[in-house]
Amino acid sequence: MRMTELYETGDRTEIGSYLFTEERILRFARKYDPQRFHTDRDAARNTMFGALCASGWHTTAAWMQCFLRYWMAEIGRLKSEGLEPPNLGPSPGFQKLQWLKPVFVDETVSYSVTFLSGRPLASRPGWHLNTIHCEGVNQDAIAVIRFESTVLEFE
Amino acid sequence: MRMTELYETGDRTEIGSYLFTEERILRFARKYDPQRFHTDRDAARNTMFGALCASGWHTTAAWMQCFLRYWMAEIGRLKSEGLEPPNLGPSPGFQKLQWLKPVFVDETVSYSVTFLSGRPLASRPGWHLNTIHCEGVNQDAIAVIRFESTVLEFE
Repeated sequence: MRMTELYETGDRTEIGSYLFTEERILRFARKYDPQRFHTDRDAARNTMFGALCASGWHTTAAWMQCFLRYWMAEIGRLKSEGLEPPNLGPSPGFQKLQWLKPVFVDETVSYSVTFLSGRPLASRPGWHLNTIHCEGVNQDAIAVIRFESTVLEFE
Repeated sequence: MRMTELYETGDRTEIGSYLFTEERILRFARKYDPQRFHTDRDAARNTMFGALCASGWHTTAAWMQCFLRYWMAEIGRLKSEGLEPPNLGPSPGFQKLQWLKPVFVDETVSYSVTFLSGRPLASRPGWHLNTIHCEGVNQDAIAVIRFESTVLEFE
């Protein structure tokens, strides 16, 4: 099956949630993004965020985690129905990433993917290039992250 | 000081390197991007990459780590010269991220930042919006990642 056989333009799928505990925020930020609003609860109070919040890169990594968990389950579901799941390859990149709101301690971000388009790649016979719109909203349904991603698919 | 006083359009700065050891690749991928070409040295051989390689999100997180280390040193340097460093705020996002080549075990990625432009934000007096071009090249000087980022700056 092709992604274009599974999804129509505008189809939106909830792919899962991620709870940004203080421990997770600190663990990621201490390693990759050690700014005081990401690594120090007290010092964060005197920053423009006013409280400890997650690294933006942590919110993208959590999207990846949710997407993979969703996709693995989807593969299982399709196979159990006797269908051949699409073969997704690596992503060549993405566009227009926006970090819209900070994600504070113990906030939950729910991620979704909206299928935009899929087309054959002229340069690589048998390959398709799909574009998806990705979003994460917090527990108040306010968008905190948005980006558009491209996903390769092969026969 | 403003970023525009420190850098001219086209100024390129090496911000540091990151060694993608097998341990680091596995640690990141097992948590956030558990695909077999990122988490299993043997299984990776039978994938399109042909060997274990780093999650793309790991290569962005490593950029952030290098950038912060560079910027902290730069703040120290400017202060030691009696200058007031620019106040960098959070990034509202970025554009056109490209993962160009896989990053395999024990490869080193050297990151750079090229200053593109800075302008006052009409909506927020005292704030500037800077655009930078970011790149990572491997030990053979081949580009593996590129993106354009925006960075807020305040008085």
